[in-house]
Amino acid sequence: MIIIGELINGMYKDVTRAINNREADIIQHLALEQVKEGASILDVNTGPYSKDPTRDMKWLVETIQAVVEVPLSLDSTKADVIEEGLKITRKRAIINSTSADTDRMDIIFGLAKRYNAQVIGLTMDKTGVPNSKGDRLELAQAIVAKAIEYGINTEDLYLDPILLPLNVAQAQAAEVLESLREIRLLCNPAPQTVFGLSNLSQGAYKSRSIINRTFLTMAIANGLTSVILDPLDRKLMDALITAELLLNKNIYCESFLDAYRKR
Amino acid sequence: MIIIGELINGMYKDVTRAINNREADIIQHLALEQVKEGASILDVNTGPYSKDPTRDMKWLVETIQAVVEVPLSLDSTKADVIEEGLKITRKRAIINSTSADTDRMDIIFGLAKRYNAQVIGLTMDKTGVPNSKGDRLELAQAIVAKAIEYGINTEDLYLDPILLPLNVAQAQAAEVLESLREIRLLCNPAPQTVFGLSNLSQGAYKSRSIINRTFLTMAIANGLTSVILDPLDRKLMDALITAELLLNKNIYCESFLDAYRKR
Repeated sequence: MIIIGELINGMYKDVTRAINNREADIIQHLALEQVKEGASILDVNTGPYSKDPTRDMKWLVETIQAVVEVPLSLDSTKADVIEEGLKITRKRAIINSTSADTDRMDIIFGLAKRYNAQVIGLTMDKTGVPNSKGDRLELAQAIVAKAIEYGINTEDLYLDPILLPLNVAQAQAAEVLESLREIRLLCNPAPQTVFGLSNLSQGAYKSRSIINRTFLTMAIANGLTSVILDPLDRKLMDALITAELLLNKNIYCESFLDAYRKR
Repeated sequence: MIIIGELINGMYKDVTRAINNREADIIQHLALEQVKEGASILDVNTGPYSKDPTRDMKWLVETIQAVVEVPLSLDSTKADVIEEGLKITRKRAIINSTSADTDRMDIIFGLAKRYNAQVIGLTMDKTGVPNSKGDRLELAQAIVAKAIEYGINTEDLYLDPILLPLNVAQAQAAEVLESLREIRLLCNPAPQTVFGLSNLSQGAYKSRSIINRTFLTMAIANGLTSVILDPLDRKLMDALITAELLLNKNIYCESFLDAYRKR
């Protein structure tokens, strides 16, 4: 499982404050903690309140790279913000993200080709997020086709069927589960699958943790290959480690949780 | 989800003692507690130490039926012990179980037909438990064919791909997960799927609970329709309820765990 840590995101107030005040230690602490708890990639998002997202992205990437060596997922709706990150990332980056809209895909896959980056593709377009597995797969297929057109290896494509909050779109969770399974069959080599887990439980105050970890294990059973989550959620990581154990990805021993963390 | 409570089983020392001493209150307490916590069926097994399993089965069924009204799963390797239960069960019973061996199936499906019972069919035969999904499906198909031969409705057949202890057969858990999905496609109406969950974590002392509940949610994601488990394991039931919510089987509300339990 490729674990993408979600915590360096200006959506969180303390991160926005750290960005605005250039408090490198706060960002670096979040980077170090997430990697320590199992993140293999860190998502970097300047957030909705950034006044100068291009400069903020540059500062974040430099600040994070000063303390950890993992690849970064450059998370922005603005192509120039992503490119600012791509210019200076030392490890191969992931662009987070493109939609299935042709104009956006042309920009993002162009960047991916130029900078040898991987790409997260969201199965949505200008009309919104589809309501069914079938429509998700149709958009996924369009993204795959465009990636191939740009000479992107389909293994470097992360397709995200988009988790919606359970409290507003309950029926969609099952559609996402089945989409995960079928996305893997779209092409060879199979694309990665991914989603932003926390989105599922937006607004579910007291049950967020159990909703997230239960869905994650169900998605792993359906072949999920990577996920954007909070790696500091210990119970969530326990569930992830156990689910992978049950799929025989790691060797069982009595202390398998500790063994995984000591790797 | 059809939840079959596993606790009335002579395998447990206190149950064997209660059976031997005819302590009805202990058995009835276990029956009431399991139903209260969500069991829709109770498994009844006199256990390996019973000196007179036929009389013990009769006493257990009468004792349980004096306090709860749920159907019973008559769990024995001996056909005469099962039949003793079938004679007196007031609700439609489940026979637990037949293997895929022809002689056993003829006896069990004969009983099922005579007493209008449902049947759990284990995908194993005299040579043991298969090592692959393919071999499990082959035995499942043989059980389905025999059930049809006896005029049993395939919806009344519970096919069990058999969970083995993770510490001795780790690779089999994933085979079971995929078997669950494909068993449902064997015939129309689809057979139920079931397994004894606790078997998975035999010998995994400190991790039993997380292994059981993680696998259960993964199996639910693969279409599991019923399960034999300990309904008094609160965290396990929380996981089950949440997994069903995520498949849109119950309506989301902020207090969905409480709401489910108050049904």
